[in-house]
Amino acid sequence: MADTADMAGWACPAPLRDYQRIVLGHGGGGVLTGELIEHLFLPAFAAGSSTTRRDPTSAMADTALADTALADAAVLAVGGIRLAFTTDSYVVRPLFFPGGSIGELAVHGTVNDLACRGAVPLALSAGFILEEGLELDVLGRVAQAMGRAAAAAGVRLATGDTKVVERGLADGLYVNTSGIGLVPPGVDVRPDRAAPGDRIIVSGPIGEHGIAVLSVREGLEFGGDVHSDTAALHGLVAAMLAATVPGVHALRDPTRGGLATALCEVAAAAGAGIEFTESAVPVPPVVEAACGFLGLDPLHVACEGRLVAFVAAADADAVLAAMRAHPAGRDAVVIGSVTAEHPGVVVARTAFGGNRIVDRPLGEQLPRIC
Amino acid sequence: MADTADMAGWACPAPLRDYQRIVLGHGGGGVLTGELIEHLFLPAFAAGSSTTRRDPTSAMADTALADTALADAAVLAVGGIRLAFTTDSYVVRPLFFPGGSIGELAVHGTVNDLACRGAVPLALSAGFILEEGLELDVLGRVAQAMGRAAAAAGVRLATGDTKVVERGLADGLYVNTSGIGLVPPGVDVRPDRAAPGDRIIVSGPIGEHGIAVLSVREGLEFGGDVHSDTAALHGLVAAMLAATVPGVHALRDPTRGGLATALCEVAAAAGAGIEFTESAVPVPPVVEAACGFLGLDPLHVACEGRLVAFVAAADADAVLAAMRAHPAGRDAVVIGSVTAEHPGVVVARTAFGGNRIVDRPLGEQLPRIC
Repeated sequence: MADTADMAGWACPAPLRDYQRIVLGHGGGGVLTGELIEHLFLPAFAAGSSTTRRDPTSAMADTALADTALADAAVLAVGGIRLAFTTDSYVVRPLFFPGGSIGELAVHGTVNDLACRGAVPLALSAGFILEEGLELDVLGRVAQAMGRAAAAAGVRLATGDTKVVERGLADGLYVNTSGIGLVPPGVDVRPDRAAPGDRIIVSGPIGEHGIAVLSVREGLEFGGDVHSDTAALHGLVAAMLAATVPGVHALRDPTRGGLATALCEVAAAAGAGIEFTESAVPVPPVVEAACGFLGLDPLHVACEGRLVAFVAAADADAVLAAMRAHPAGRDAVVIGSVTAEHPGVVVARTAFGGNRIVDRPLGEQLPRIC
Repeated sequence: MADTADMAGWACPAPLRDYQRIVLGHGGGGVLTGELIEHLFLPAFAAGSSTTRRDPTSAMADTALADTALADAAVLAVGGIRLAFTTDSYVVRPLFFPGGSIGELAVHGTVNDLACRGAVPLALSAGFILEEGLELDVLGRVAQAMGRAAAAAGVRLATGDTKVVERGLADGLYVNTSGIGLVPPGVDVRPDRAAPGDRIIVSGPIGEHGIAVLSVREGLEFGGDVHSDTAALHGLVAAMLAATVPGVHALRDPTRGGLATALCEVAAAAGAGIEFTESAVPVPPVVEAACGFLGLDPLHVACEGRLVAFVAAADADAVLAAMRAHPAGRDAVVIGSVTAEHPGVVVARTAFGGNRIVDRPLGEQLPRIC
């Protein structure tokens, strides 16, 4: 990197306060989503929090609301145990794509949010918003995909809700899954635990989910089959924690906004810099071809079955070996490390020996990818 | 009632299997919603359940999936405590109505689902689906309503998610709130605990929420102000449980499908009959006038801040007194009792001394009421 002193002074764009209305980018998981959380939701929800009556029957910890913005799931201390709790709505278009459907996505995505706090997933909810006129056959196929994915992941679909809106709304169906999981004793996995010296491990090839959805949506072919990588990652996380509990500092599944966003968010949360080797990031040829064709950065394309791990240097070999021994992590690689320099800034070493700053996308590069 | 023997042979209409597509009524909380749950969701989700790996780190009970269909929230045994877990999506139209907004509704509705299992609400999630073009000001007002309602109810908005869909979809915004709560030791409140002899108590006037939404949506006036009854009921439930823990058998908040649906569902779950005096049900004059004008049955109109309780006869006076001493239950009244006769059938004694069978609405009497 040419000049880390200059880099340290660099910052994300200032809040774009001139937006009066929601744009697609507010749902993209990038800068605009972050602004919405920081400037609208957190103040509105915190207005409540400051006057919150403490619950008399539980030992709920004073979990910061900001946890919402920083981590994949909130962790709450309840009655002597620690629960992870998370929610995601799924609006992917189309409902079915190579390698999966909104059903698998809704189970895997929420399981993975729990796993990225080190939690063992226990139960999911399923809240459907259906469009009048949706074929029952389509709904049945989605529900069965959810049932199969939940069974394979060992989680229970424990509670549900169904609403119907008029024809022309809701694009067939939307589904929300919320999830609860149990954080085992001693496990403490969160973005702000990433620390200088940590090795950064990516669990497998990136970008296949985003390109698979795009290919079917736009009717494009990219010189090769591409299937969504959608998968549950809690088994992989359990294998990593079996190698070391304290050494697994932070985990993130790079969904909307891709690997770049995951790295930027962890750098910001940890107040540390990140450096990685661009050529070390596993980008499948079909993803590279599609991104070249479409002018996309593979680092911004969503995965739904990958994670990025921040692991203490002393434990990195053991964790990497554990990941490679697990089916969901057999292509895991170290791509870089956390630095004390240029806190909050993510730097890629390019194939040409230079450095470039990697940023979150502003808004929505690929709308409705999950 | 003329002939309870005949009544015992009566049953709900057979599954309407000739539906090929979703109709609005599938979201109405009545017969069609029940069929969708029974014939589509439960089989699909259960396909998973039978092969579910038991979680090795927790003591999760083998909660029946059918719990989903029967109760407001699932109760899961986890690590020595019992958690209630529930989800609801809110699609009410319009977003703001006399007495509240989708924001209050989303907090109160989910808090009340937890309360109806006797749980102390702990935390909520908030999953937004926003329409491109939605004014940020509108979103801010909804979020602030959620923050205020959560603070007043003493629950934490712990985790969230934001998706954006294209203009023309999602009607401004939809929001899902899922919730977790702690079931205190000894508390066991569920529809199938209602038993012959139980007194049936309604906590206050019915139907105001539905008529308030309808009045603003259709621009109708009904000769009086009507405001949504939206309110959190966990404080009322705590007061009832303070009077007796074992005597509170079942609780239900009569939302979609109204009081009639709540009574029918409990009768079915408990395998018992229900008889009540129609004139004892508190129907405000404005609700009566509106229902007369529109040809609606007040027993089918949604409340969002009322509950119906099934209480052991010996404890009914104490519970009624506890309810009346609480602001959310000051108009509580006994309307009837559970019988061993005509299991599954709800019978109203009319003002004219006759009996009529009360059934769930088939589908959607008032679409998008919550």
